[in-house]
Amino acid sequence: MSQVDTANAEALRRILEAHPVLVGVAPAGRVVPGLTEGVILHAGPPITWDRMSGPLRGAVIGGILFEGWARTEAEAVALAESGQIRFEPCHHHQAVGPMAGVTTPSMPVWVVENRTFGNQAFCNLNEGLGKVLRYGAYGEEVLQRLAWMRDVLGPALAAALESLPGGLDLKMLIAQALHMGDEGHNRNKAGSALLLRALAPALARSAGAGRPGLGDRLAEVFDFLAANEMFALNLVMAACKATMDPAHGIPACSLVTAMARNGTDFGIRVSGLGDRWFTAPSRVPRGLYFPGFKAEDANPDIGDSTITETAGLGGFAMAAAPAIVQFVGGSPRDALQATLDMYALTVGENPAFGIPVLDFRGTPTGIDIRKVVETGLLPRVNTGIAHKEAGVGQIGAGLVEPPMECFEQALLALADSIDPESQATGS
Amino acid sequence: MSQVDTANAEALRRILEAHPVLVGVAPAGRVVPGLTEGVILHAGPPITWDRMSGPLRGAVIGGILFEGWARTEAEAVALAESGQIRFEPCHHHQAVGPMAGVTTPSMPVWVVENRTFGNQAFCNLNEGLGKVLRYGAYGEEVLQRLAWMRDVLGPALAAALESLPGGLDLKMLIAQALHMGDEGHNRNKAGSALLLRALAPALARSAGAGRPGLGDRLAEVFDFLAANEMFALNLVMAACKATMDPAHGIPACSLVTAMARNGTDFGIRVSGLGDRWFTAPSRVPRGLYFPGFKAEDANPDIGDSTITETAGLGGFAMAAAPAIVQFVGGSPRDALQATLDMYALTVGENPAFGIPVLDFRGTPTGIDIRKVVETGLLPRVNTGIAHKEAGVGQIGAGLVEPPMECFEQALLALADSIDPESQATGS
Repeated sequence: MSQVDTANAEALRRILEAHPVLVGVAPAGRVVPGLTEGVILHAGPPITWDRMSGPLRGAVIGGILFEGWARTEAEAVALAESGQIRFEPCHHHQAVGPMAGVTTPSMPVWVVENRTFGNQAFCNLNEGLGKVLRYGAYGEEVLQRLAWMRDVLGPALAAALESLPGGLDLKMLIAQALHMGDEGHNRNKAGSALLLRALAPALARSAGAGRPGLGDRLAEVFDFLAANEMFALNLVMAACKATMDPAHGIPACSLVTAMARNGTDFGIRVSGLGDRWFTAPSRVPRGLYFPGFKAEDANPDIGDSTITETAGLGGFAMAAAPAIVQFVGGSPRDALQATLDMYALTVGENPAFGIPVLDFRGTPTGIDIRKVVETGLLPRVNTGIAHKEAGVGQIGAGLVEPPMECFEQALLALADSIDPESQATGS
Repeated sequence: MSQVDTANAEALRRILEAHPVLVGVAPAGRVVPGLTEGVILHAGPPITWDRMSGPLRGAVIGGILFEGWARTEAEAVALAESGQIRFEPCHHHQAVGPMAGVTTPSMPVWVVENRTFGNQAFCNLNEGLGKVLRYGAYGEEVLQRLAWMRDVLGPALAAALESLPGGLDLKMLIAQALHMGDEGHNRNKAGSALLLRALAPALARSAGAGRPGLGDRLAEVFDFLAANEMFALNLVMAACKATMDPAHGIPACSLVTAMARNGTDFGIRVSGLGDRWFTAPSRVPRGLYFPGFKAEDANPDIGDSTITETAGLGGFAMAAAPAIVQFVGGSPRDALQATLDMYALTVGENPAFGIPVLDFRGTPTGIDIRKVVETGLLPRVNTGIAHKEAGVGQIGAGLVEPPMECFEQALLALADSIDPESQATGS
């Protein structure tokens, strides 16, 4: 067994033994390390304001207005341009964020703990469809919803979770959702319904007990949750981040621990290659567009939600979610094939996440950059599609391929990093 | 086209155009026609006390005690034996009931309306697993739960539904559940979660408004709903009954409009053959048993839940529910094959109920007794398994075949009933 294979086996063990549990909801500024006044987290690898795409700029403007750091759009843009805001990747703060991924200190975040390794991960709460910050919209409707999430939804969820001392087992929830037609990235209908079901008693109980005013808001909270079939996405993402982080930083390990896009660049991180990002230009997804929109309107791929594929869900688990093709295009056979293809890129299967139609075979897990380069097959990614201009929002959903250059660069770096006498690159 | 084919086309049209909507919850005695003091409804074709199996007797005893018509088990048995109780099939009262199907006037029932044809159907509420009346248990725990359902759950659901003036679209709910791994009979995990999701806002809203005491009970209601993955079964059954009733009573029609078992006899009704039941001895299901139980403990097949297969769900939709094999046995491939086999017995496909892995092909719908007899294939039925003795409860789940004799007798009767010069039997 080569040095790389040994390292990969250890990384795979950590991924499979991960046990993500939802333990709370709290304002990001209170729990996310280093998210202080003047810091804005975003999706993907590092990027400066001048290189940001429309939807990320839109979300940044919205985040600044939401925090009250500026009063008008023009002021917000000036502040963003001034260099007084520190833009940092969610991934640098144990966090992930879908699409633009913009996370500011006042926003409530899911707090997920990996019980096996003790690490925590964070993700903001899903706003639903339509005009939403994560797709780059920042109008009054968007800001009002964010304020409601901060003032009502976040505290309601926080109170409910305080009354569940063991937390909510996300490994179990995801496993169940995969038996119910979810793949955990672009289809979270089952996970969202299971999440509501799991939290409803605690929401009702905590709304009644000693939190004045919250009782009246309970129906609003249920309205919001019941209308949002993607509500569980952000929680699944946090679970995946909590799962992958302990597998990072193993010398000589060739497994991908993060894939993320900032709307301009697609970047990956590899376990054995430290904090370095390997980036290349982000591609435009192909998929199904909402009425009135077309491919020319689309922004290049954006978001940290590819943490799901990195952990063996999303495009890697599409065989579990044949109904997703109504949303992303293709046929149920394509969905099945997508998963089968991914076994060629991965070093293991996750027995906790069985796919019923494949006789409960575990999802393909642990992307090996060597296998990507050797086979020429790219990781399969499901994604939402954002309008390329700030302020518009989601215009479709589909599939996208990461750029091969990221994997090639990383493989060269890995070869440089390890003992030249080992058979480490395996090629 | 023969007289029979013409009649079947009309029946199929009515089945496919059915639009079941949940419109309320009410005490059975207030809404189910003819369910008055001293009447007990049961599953399956008509049966007298002396021929009832253990679980049906147990449920009858429980029903009598629950209504307060007797104070002890011995008194209840004496009353049941006395001839003073009228035992009638649920199916004779626009109703269905899972397993024993015992329904008494005080029990809350789902009220489902077929918006296309104006007819209503009813089904009691699911008690959950363990010691429950429908499996023939009637101890204190069972009666207390029934009282809570009458006093808390029923009124809470009734109030919630009063605040949803359009009702809840069950055709849509079932269609979604089939995309989420349910088959609507033995697997209702998605349907139950979707139902909770749909009702949660209205439950919260109505609990807060002018119903003293109900607010405190809201968390109890959510606890109950969140713990019961079969809660939607009874509602799906009522939707299927509401769907099938308008297809009944078409002269010369050879489609099955009800399959039902009372624990002793399996009976079917055929659209063109009026109110007559064609019966034969009920068989013992084969399946997976809970720890400590075996096939010798099993009661013959029991319950009206076969209304789901009659309407193209349950065993007919197993391809949608590969994960069900963990509950009823077999492999995902068997589940797929079960659905494919049923297309040979049916006259149509329901486009509203698409099965993702079959490229969204509609579920096989409209069992033709001619095809059953000609092919020798029997309808595929998923079922729970009750202990044969009164008072024990569920001991497993599995598959069962209806007796071929029911279909053979019905086919002979149909041949007798129609114009001898037509080609009606089609054989």
